[in-house]
Amino acid sequence: MVLTPNPRVVLAKNPSYELPVAGEHIVYDPSPTIDLDLKLNGGFLTKTLLLSPEPYMRERIRDASIESYSTPMQVGQPLVGFGLVLVLRSEKEGVKAGDYMYGFTPWEAYTVQPYMDARTEYKNFPAYTFDMDSLVLQPVPNPEGAFPWTRYCSCIGAPGLTAFIGLEHLAPDAKAGQTIYVSSGASGVGRLKTIGSASTDAKVEYMRSVGADVAFNYKTTPVAAALAEHGPIDLFFDNVGGEQLEAALENMNFKGRVISCGAIAEYNIPNDQRYGIKNMSIMFKRRIRLEGFIVADTPEYNTRFFTEIPPLVAQGKITGQEQLFAGLERGPEAFLSMFDGKSTAKPVVVVDRIWIMNPTLYYSRIPHNP
Amino acid sequence: MVLTPNPRVVLAKNPSYELPVAGEHIVYDPSPTIDLDLKLNGGFLTKTLLLSPEPYMRERIRDASIESYSTPMQVGQPLVGFGLVLVLRSEKEGVKAGDYMYGFTPWEAYTVQPYMDARTEYKNFPAYTFDMDSLVLQPVPNPEGAFPWTRYCSCIGAPGLTAFIGLEHLAPDAKAGQTIYVSSGASGVGRLKTIGSASTDAKVEYMRSVGADVAFNYKTTPVAAALAEHGPIDLFFDNVGGEQLEAALENMNFKGRVISCGAIAEYNIPNDQRYGIKNMSIMFKRRIRLEGFIVADTPEYNTRFFTEIPPLVAQGKITGQEQLFAGLERGPEAFLSMFDGKSTAKPVVVVDRIWIMNPTLYYSRIPHNP
Repeated sequence: MVLTPNPRVVLAKNPSYELPVAGEHIVYDPSPTIDLDLKLNGGFLTKTLLLSPEPYMRERIRDASIESYSTPMQVGQPLVGFGLVLVLRSEKEGVKAGDYMYGFTPWEAYTVQPYMDARTEYKNFPAYTFDMDSLVLQPVPNPEGAFPWTRYCSCIGAPGLTAFIGLEHLAPDAKAGQTIYVSSGASGVGRLKTIGSASTDAKVEYMRSVGADVAFNYKTTPVAAALAEHGPIDLFFDNVGGEQLEAALENMNFKGRVISCGAIAEYNIPNDQRYGIKNMSIMFKRRIRLEGFIVADTPEYNTRFFTEIPPLVAQGKITGQEQLFAGLERGPEAFLSMFDGKSTAKPVVVVDRIWIMNPTLYYSRIPHNP
Repeated sequence: MVLTPNPRVVLAKNPSYELPVAGEHIVYDPSPTIDLDLKLNGGFLTKTLLLSPEPYMRERIRDASIESYSTPMQVGQPLVGFGLVLVLRSEKEGVKAGDYMYGFTPWEAYTVQPYMDARTEYKNFPAYTFDMDSLVLQPVPNPEGAFPWTRYCSCIGAPGLTAFIGLEHLAPDAKAGQTIYVSSGASGVGRLKTIGSASTDAKVEYMRSVGADVAFNYKTTPVAAALAEHGPIDLFFDNVGGEQLEAALENMNFKGRVISCGAIAEYNIPNDQRYGIKNMSIMFKRRIRLEGFIVADTPEYNTRFFTEIPPLVAQGKITGQEQLFAGLERGPEAFLSMFDGKSTAKPVVVVDRIWIMNPTLYYSRIPHNP
């Protein structure tokens, strides 16, 4: 039996509400090993290529006694999130060695999938909760080098899918000439007049480069004033919440629409310290509709997304800016960069260093001899 | 020329954000007179029978420089609100002496209608504003004594119409077995499990008497705890806002719906002292839809309402509890009772004392010899 190192990024301890600390709560552990020849018992063995830190993961990092919309991650176990994996061996029908798959996977180098013994159905979960782990790995198209594989961790993965479904599902009547405001820097919304905000100047510059009509840093610019100047807003895609939401409501147009998709401003503070929104009466004064949304509810859009968007990415019509973190050991840093102001773009953890060591492979398949 | 007293209730001075004071801001003035034989110039002369104080009127009482969703009332002029009037003389086509009309009218004994020289169209108003004065008087059915005329100031007037349209327009898919929560004590919602809250014990008792499954006083009961016990809520019809909205969100069901129709908790406090709602992230965690609504946007429902509801009121299937204030001089008190905790039911100002002096006339037409 040969043991191969199988490093992981572990949830060592739940923070309460504060920002998690690398080395204390989120810990890189190089010590585990795996026998790559072990029995698969009907599962399949994968090598992790890319991992996609995303803000919703913060909500899953909590004590299991705290109710929320997603199932909690397990203390002592690796973080779980969207990623790209390569199948090394398989005993599962429909999955074969050499497949590239995208979906939920633990933050470790190698995994015998499915990693949960008792994967459950959404409908069996308590009210309000959502089995995040049901977002199973699925084979993804290999575009023969048309775009970097990392795009699966940005514009053609869950972040892009969220923007796509959010607009398609909740704002199908958006039309040319209207003004959309996207907090937390989504981009590429097309013919609408687009206002974007983000938390760093570099992201603001990026939003301008991809065509935002107006872009500003919401940490250094008074948001209400900026929106008053460039609004009113017909459609607000909110990923930040708190003061951003209040400022946007103040500048919404009559019969405007708000898509509430996230609240990164609130993920690392105690409930009673969250910002209190004082202008909700605008909802009836201007007949606003605000609707909550997460991407996993509406899988009926997935086929269209995965059919229509990758070609647009390949043609350069949709682009995504990524910040690559080379090596699983940089996982804690990559995760925390979303909350501590250090991220410069969508973070991606490049677990398999072959892509970093040899950039010409970045667009190619990786040879799958483990 | 014979001059007849024409007392009025005048907006003497705008309060800033505090509760208006009778005698200072809202003043009964017995001194005006009117020549009932005066020329009508194509208009019509009405005698005011009933006036309906309603919470939205507070928003109209503000300095004209403060932008809001409704046009401001005029300092020095009578309050304006929904009421029932009797036509004494008319030079206007389609309106004849003896007609009973319901709609906007000034708080004075006699009026040459239309009272505004420059009544304008909704579309000419600035964004976000609403010409409240366009809710013109219209003849209303005379049910030959089937119900008290005061019902036009409660369940078959704007308050009832608001509940009707709110549910028909924004919650057409509400179904038996679901739980609805109505803040500020609306009632009679039918087969849904109904939870109601109100600001006094008397109103709570009333809600129970008309069939609310659960009723409580939101000023003395911890709202979140009461809703946790009797929820979760599928549909929330919010007339109060602030802490009530926060407590209801906390107890909303997955994919619940909120109809935001008013915020009486906020009408008499400065903007920066309004309650801040801290749990808006529930909107996406539970995929809630919250939609603002005011009754005047959807006149297409009015015909159905005025056709279907009055017979149900006549048959006693829908009832409304009213608190009568006899005499226009009690107008300021009736108006303020909505905000100072002194109201016991929907206030109605009975301007024409004949209904108070002779209750048998209460269900009848009033002789129209001025």
